[in-house]
Amino acid sequence: MSGNTFGSLFKVTTFGESHGEALGCIVDGCPAGLPISLEKLQKALDRRRPGVGADGKLNASVTARTESDKAEVLSGIFEGKATGTPIAIEVRNTSQHSSDYGNLVNTFRPGHADYAYDFKYGGNRDYRGGGRSSGRETLARVAAGSIANQFLETKGIKITAYTIKAAGIQVPADSYDFSQIEQNNLRCPNNQIAELMNQKIEEIRKAGDSAGGIIECVVEGCPVGLGEPVFDKLDAELAKAMLSIGAVKGFEIGDGFAAADSFGSSNNDSMYEKNGRAEFSSNHSGGVLGGISNGNKIVFRIAVKPVPSIFKPQNTVSRGENNSYENAELQIKGRHDVCLCPRIVPVVEAMTAIVLADLYLRNQSVLFN
Amino acid sequence: MSGNTFGSLFKVTTFGESHGEALGCIVDGCPAGLPISLEKLQKALDRRRPGVGADGKLNASVTARTESDKAEVLSGIFEGKATGTPIAIEVRNTSQHSSDYGNLVNTFRPGHADYAYDFKYGGNRDYRGGGRSSGRETLARVAAGSIANQFLETKGIKITAYTIKAAGIQVPADSYDFSQIEQNNLRCPNNQIAELMNQKIEEIRKAGDSAGGIIECVVEGCPVGLGEPVFDKLDAELAKAMLSIGAVKGFEIGDGFAAADSFGSSNNDSMYEKNGRAEFSSNHSGGVLGGISNGNKIVFRIAVKPVPSIFKPQNTVSRGENNSYENAELQIKGRHDVCLCPRIVPVVEAMTAIVLADLYLRNQSVLFN
Amino acid sequence: MSGNTFGSLFKVTTFGESHGEALGCIVDGCPAGLPISLEKLQKALDRRRPGVGADGKLNASVTARTESDKAEVLSGIFEGKATGTPIAIEVRNTSQHSSDYGNLVNTFRPGHADYAYDFKYGGNRDYRGGGRSSGRETLARVAAGSIANQFLETKGIKITAYTIKAAGIQVPADSYDFSQIEQNNLRCPNNQIAELMNQKIEEIRKAGDSAGGIIECVVEGCPVGLGEPVFDKLDAELAKAMLSIGAVKGFEIGDGFAAADSFGSSNNDSMYEKNGRAEFSSNHSGGVLGGISNGNKIVFRIAVKPVPSIFKPQNTVSRGENNSYENAELQIKGRHDVCLCPRIVPVVEAMTAIVLADLYLRNQSVLFN
Amino acid sequence: MSGNTFGSLFKVTTFGESHGEALGCIVDGCPAGLPISLEKLQKALDRRRPGVGADGKLNASVTARTESDKAEVLSGIFEGKATGTPIAIEVRNTSQHSSDYGNLVNTFRPGHADYAYDFKYGGNRDYRGGGRSSGRETLARVAAGSIANQFLETKGIKITAYTIKAAGIQVPADSYDFSQIEQNNLRCPNNQIAELMNQKIEEIRKAGDSAGGIIECVVEGCPVGLGEPVFDKLDAELAKAMLSIGAVKGFEIGDGFAAADSFGSSNNDSMYEKNGRAEFSSNHSGGVLGGISNGNKIVFRIAVKPVPSIFKPQNTVSRGENNSYENAELQIKGRHDVCLCPRIVPVVEAMTAIVLADLYLRNQSVLFN
Repeated sequence: MSGNTFGSLFKVTTFGESHGEALGCIVDGCPAGLPISLEKLQKALDRRRPGVGADGKLNASVTARTESDKAEVLSGIFEGKATGTPIAIEVRNTSQHSSDYGNLVNTFRPGHADYAYDFKYGGNRDYRGGGRSSGRETLARVAAGSIANQFLETKGIKITAYTIKAAGIQVPADSYDFSQIEQNNLRCPNNQIAELMNQKIEEIRKAGDSAGGIIECVVEGCPVGLGEPVFDKLDAELAKAMLSIGAVKGFEIGDGFAAADSFGSSNNDSMYEKNGRAEFSSNHSGGVLGGISNGNKIVFRIAVKPVPSIFKPQNTVSRGENNSYENAELQIKGRHDVCLCPRIVPVVEAMTAIVLADLYLRNQSVLFN
Repeated sequence: MSGNTFGSLFKVTTFGESHGEALGCIVDGCPAGLPISLEKLQKALDRRRPGVGADGKLNASVTARTESDKAEVLSGIFEGKATGTPIAIEVRNTSQHSSDYGNLVNTFRPGHADYAYDFKYGGNRDYRGGGRSSGRETLARVAAGSIANQFLETKGIKITAYTIKAAGIQVPADSYDFSQIEQNNLRCPNNQIAELMNQKIEEIRKAGDSAGGIIECVVEGCPVGLGEPVFDKLDAELAKAMLSIGAVKGFEIGDGFAAADSFGSSNNDSMYEKNGRAEFSSNHSGGVLGGISNGNKIVFRIAVKPVPSIFKPQNTVSRGENNSYENAELQIKGRHDVCLCPRIVPVVEAMTAIVLADLYLRNQSVLFN
Repeated sequence: MSGNTFGSLFKVTTFGESHGEALGCIVDGCPAGLPISLEKLQKALDRRRPGVGADGKLNASVTARTESDKAEVLSGIFEGKATGTPIAIEVRNTSQHSSDYGNLVNTFRPGHADYAYDFKYGGNRDYRGGGRSSGRETLARVAAGSIANQFLETKGIKITAYTIKAAGIQVPADSYDFSQIEQNNLRCPNNQIAELMNQKIEEIRKAGDSAGGIIECVVEGCPVGLGEPVFDKLDAELAKAMLSIGAVKGFEIGDGFAAADSFGSSNNDSMYEKNGRAEFSSNHSGGVLGGISNGNKIVFRIAVKPVPSIFKPQNTVSRGENNSYENAELQIKGRHDVCLCPRIVPVVEAMTAIVLADLYLRNQSVLFN
Repeated sequence: MSGNTFGSLFKVTTFGESHGEALGCIVDGCPAGLPISLEKLQKALDRRRPGVGADGKLNASVTARTESDKAEVLSGIFEGKATGTPIAIEVRNTSQHSSDYGNLVNTFRPGHADYAYDFKYGGNRDYRGGGRSSGRETLARVAAGSIANQFLETKGIKITAYTIKAAGIQVPADSYDFSQIEQNNLRCPNNQIAELMNQKIEEIRKAGDSAGGIIECVVEGCPVGLGEPVFDKLDAELAKAMLSIGAVKGFEIGDGFAAADSFGSSNNDSMYEKNGRAEFSSNHSGGVLGGISNGNKIVFRIAVKPVPSIFKPQNTVSRGENNSYENAELQIKGRHDVCLCPRIVPVVEAMTAIVLADLYLRNQSVLFN
């Protein structure tokens, strides 16, 4: 496989299955001397934790498996600071109910990775809870992202993601209030719209169905110059990072797909001088030009598909003897999220932080001095 | 910089500036014994060539710099086959008119990479024709992509990209005719719609403005199993590849952003058995589940922004003494594309081919046998 | 740092400090379906374990810290087989006596990495037991090497390392008996010579001093074709792997430095046909030509320096205020190895296994078919 | 193959066969703003050039193919400085005599890479002049090394390699005079010894045989801190770089293999304070501790095997029909080097420069500030 490492200088390698012993990561390349707060690390994991909403209450829209998700740092931090050696972080699984998955050993859930994994790895697959393809895998991303974020904070870089659309209901563009993001269980920057979203989600849940949505992410304080053309452009790395998250089906930066309908005269961001510096009059580009941050806010959005685990019977196939397939009907049990957006928000922030930390470090060696 | 390599086993490294001596690439990792046609290579480059439309005629919608873009293979091919050693391909620049760019030495074109490059590299920048950030850079991608594609062809994998929207005019989803793609200068799978697009583009040109569009790409014949979770997923690699192309602002796979508004019950692709194999009843996922190809057609789209070079005067800044900036008004001269879509189509195919060739090779070592 | 990953397809990332919570590794790229024995894994770690000699007895020539070094697999293995997902292995530290190292906080042990680490990482350093530069770090290599080795075993590839020189006493080249390697505490293929070595080592110990030695490694059954020229040659990768082990100061393959004194006519290995295959009349090359395995036995040797921790007083420096240095005299306490060879033998085998597993997988994609 | 890239931030990718169109490299990651002298680049290539000795005269000890080896820079340098974009350098082959190699199409030269390449790449091999495995490949290393060296010069880092042994004759350790290195055709730091070496080499030539030797390399001015443990240690990277050069069979740093016979008390380098800095009383370690440069001179040596092309008849095999092998006798024709040392000296310096430039850049991001 060997596809479990992200980044080249700030390098994150993750491991772990939904029902294995533990999940975690190794962060290699964190600069020595960076103060690291384990409280912030744990708080980041708590925020991603299943069973608890952004408002801290047990949440009807999210999954019911309760895990403490307690992070343990095994190496790389000494007396509160990074030593420059690999930081290993581990979270033990404690609340697996593997018996729930007996009927999924050979029967593939539509919309899930089951079939593709099973085929690719020749039937060698930890089917319990989706194994490596479980959303629980994002825990390791969030842990690594917290380290990245603690680095970026010292540089004045702030990352904020939030749900702008869920179950077909969109937050009006002029009504964002970032202070409300953590006040509702959808991580929506508008409590009133969140309420409408929740009502719609509750309807969908009752129908045994699920919903998708859109998450937006804004990066403030990013210096000019991050991104390594021509392939490791900032937006290219962000796009890869986002599409690497399960259930994400689209990425757009700045005006994105709307730019396709625009004109050069309206899509170009004019520049002007202010206090001897260059500023932009608008931000259609989303803060990236030529694959390099331009000092403007970085703004991008991702599309999240509806949760594939629904409670309606579905047609699928089972793998039988000799790797042949047979028709099957599947009825998924247990409890599942209806809309993944609020749980993906911290993952978006984490992956964004990893991308930026990596490109920040890479940018330190591009100029001769 | 060191961001000029793409792929890990089928590894492409590119070089070259718009007005430098040459552009080209090294393809490292092409399997020994692969028959390679230099005619196909040249044909791929010809297709990308500026000044000539898909219909082979000098094209009003594209740029006027005329280059022969003659590829020379310097290594790695012997007696018509790859030897397994690096394949170096070079294209000489022959028709540079660098004097055109005198007024752009320190004045940054809005919507272009000029400012970001200039800042990142401390003013060390080949400003002529955009230097490394020029669309001419894609020539090296197309050359490498042709090698990748000749490999994929032997595996029955076929990649087809085409313009589905330009200047706000969209091809109806049920009216695609792939045989028409190369019959019109927009690489649109519908000659009639292409005609409408051209009329609109001509209007926009006369107004001194430019337009964007949307390109779709379909991959047929891709085997199940390509993609290396959790970070090097097939869709993640495609997203990176696409966003690494200049002017691309968005990527979506399968239903993409529309999936955000869908329900699990309609977005999941049911499966059934056919001749002992697993098949899908629909393709909302776009051929990728869990980051792995599932045997369905791979379908994705990208958003192309309007060409930033327009003929209206624009407000911008110049870099003066001591790296301070001053307000400036810029009037771009010369001839430029109005809509990039037809020229990006071959680049989309090339990058897709590189991604798939790399993941195909990587997939050969995931299974113990 | 980001130098803690080895390999490109069979990719090993390690972590851990001597006195931290745990050490371990993530093995990414192990082929799915490979049967993995946890008993073999534990046995490999036991063999490297401090405080116990190759003969299983508490050993006068090795260090006295007693650790159980119990491996725990956290992911990637399911029902006895690799799943193709990352295999995380962890060993907890249980017997740290960190108070022993109080006098080493700012005083640098000659011959150790202390000063270089302290300088490089700006004084951010886990000084306890050498931290990341401790020989204990090799535990993670041995764990990963066991996975690699279990893969190679299925391909008929057998790796054997052994001490051929210690404390100035060399095993005669014609007297190797591999069956004796694990019968003496020096992992020497000649029990009688081992006895002489031990006597000499005991003398050196009593004098408060330490000794070096030479380890040889033989790989049998390696197929023709492993190694990726021009940079990732088999011998180049082996050389890197060996020099990455602490205390190793030299590497030679085949006749090595002796080849410098030889003639082409005697150094060339003639070839002949046998049963339709190509065979070599001799093996001066050590099984590698042009950086590629040639089917002959791979034979290489490494030089191991004397243990730097000695019990004689040594002149060194301390880091004081403002990063200035002051002269200091250091008297190292505790118990330490006199000669590292027997403990490095398993590490040599492990790193060799990792190199070969990686190149084996890489070789699977070089040929078109 | 994909083994043709070296380095991670200062990243060098090479291409080219002995009798192909051209050889060259792409250097990705050279810091923008570095002044680059094309004269120095050409001078570095001239120094490596076949047919001319270090003294500038046509040289009896070296090969007779005369190539101008004129470097052309295709990209990445603008107005005398690096722009931060990839620097592509190309050297055309002009003096190939491919007809000389007709008898080597299927008959493998002992001691050469022919058989291993032929087997690995399934018979797809440019056999002319050794193809990719030719010593001519080092031309691309020297070109890239010159860029690296021009960077290191600005940091006060100076690399000097020289022959200390050839044809069994060794320069006494206390008789080195670096000013004489370029005064004799063996690049030996002692003209008198060089004369003796030449006499011996001439004898060997007359006998139709060849000789090996040892090259030493010294790096002065290297700052403390280069090297990325635990795998990408400075000495590990150097070892890989050296063993990646054809004909090199051994590497040792500092006392190297002699350290195996030493004691800790004599092998440890004591430290003392001088002007507030830490200094070493000796340099048994060769300037590297724990894989990190310690501020001492870096000193290492490599073993060079005798040239495999000799003029005595040799037993070997030919590949016949159906990939079976047959016995053959081979008589090599043409002119060949007797001892490779003087020609490898510039390659050793080049690879050392690439290693150090890469680790220098990597070291810029290890410390938080």
